Amino acid sequence: MELHGSLNMIGYGLASIGSAIGVGLIFAAYINGVARQPEAQRILQPIALLGFALAEALAILGLVFAFVVGV
Amino acid sequence: MELHGSLNMIGYGLASIGSAIGVGLIFAAYINGVARQPEAQRILQPIALLGFALAEALAILGLVFAFVVGV
Amino acid sequence: MELHGSLNMIGYGLASIGSAIGVGLIFAAYINGVARQPEAQRILQPIALLGFALAEALAILGLVFAFVVGV
Amino acid sequence: MELHGSLNMIGYGLASIGSAIGVGLIFAAYINGVARQPEAQRILQPIALLGFALAEALAILGLVFAFVVGV
Amino acid sequence: MELHGSLNMIGYGLASIGSAIGVGLIFAAYINGVARQPEAQRILQPIALLGFALAEALAILGLVFAFVVGV
Repeated sequence: MELHGSLNMIGYGLASIGSAIGVGLIFAAYINGVARQPEAQRILQPIALLGFALAEALAILGLVFAFVVGV
Repeated sequence: MELHGSLNMIGYGLASIGSAIGVGLIFAAYINGVARQPEAQRILQPIALLGFALAEALAILGLVFAFVVGV
Repeated sequence: MELHGSLNMIGYGLASIGSAIGVGLIFAAYINGVARQPEAQRILQPIALLGFALAEALAILGLVFAFVVGV
Repeated sequence: MELHGSLNMIGYGLASIGSAIGVGLIFAAYINGVARQPEAQRILQPIALLGFALAEALAILGLVFAFVVGV
Repeated sequence: MELHGSLNMIGYGLASIGSAIGVGLIFAAYINGVARQPEAQRILQPIALLGFALAEALAILGLVFAFVVGV
């Protein structure tokens, strides 16, 4: 049987599905907000970056977690 | 057979799909609300952070749970 | 049993689901914003490209990760 | 047991789910934008094609990746 | 165990999930656009068919790919 590879890679793949969709939703809302009120970009940028960091953190945690849990 | 890794990592991956999409939805709604009424940011911020904490808690619980359940 | 291949390929496949949907959401919002206000393209382009890079990064990380974790 | 085939094909299948949905979102926004302002087609076309290329790239990467990772 | 068949068929099945959703999104936007402005059908038809071809290509690639990767 030639099956090889690591189950951790599947775990990381699953973890990054949600993060990437979440980042897409946040930036889509950011773009829509700036398109409606270009002068609001100053207020919206830190909110978008905060949301991005919090959503992306779960995938990065999964990346670190994949190296920690027994390989 | 060269298959290695931990099933716990897959469990964490599944747990974080929903959390990350939820965080994305919450911050997208927060950005849209602030873009429409910039003066409402003071009211919306604690609501968004509360929703973020409740959605993210499930993935963090999964992270802790993966270390507790027999590795 | 003739089953062969690498589990890492499945992990990459999963990782790219979310990234591609996220990129789609970001560009859909970008197109909608430009269609509503063509003069806003100058402001929206860097935001769309920033969001694209941050969402795509998770799939590229998965691509690199697949070569690092034991093949 | 007569099960045969390659796991890489499953990985490619997963990778193309997100890309096809992303392409669908981008062209849906493109069609909506042109339906609202037919004269904006000249500006929207390169944006739609750029987004299409960036979203589709992940599936094509998966196609190439499937031949590289040990078959 | 009488289980037989090819994993490649599962991969093609996964690949066609996204394509079908993407094509559905594109034609839904096409129908919405024509419903709003019936005179715009002449402009929207080639866009819808282009988007349809690009989204469907990923599933057709999967069909071809399933015959190439070791059966």
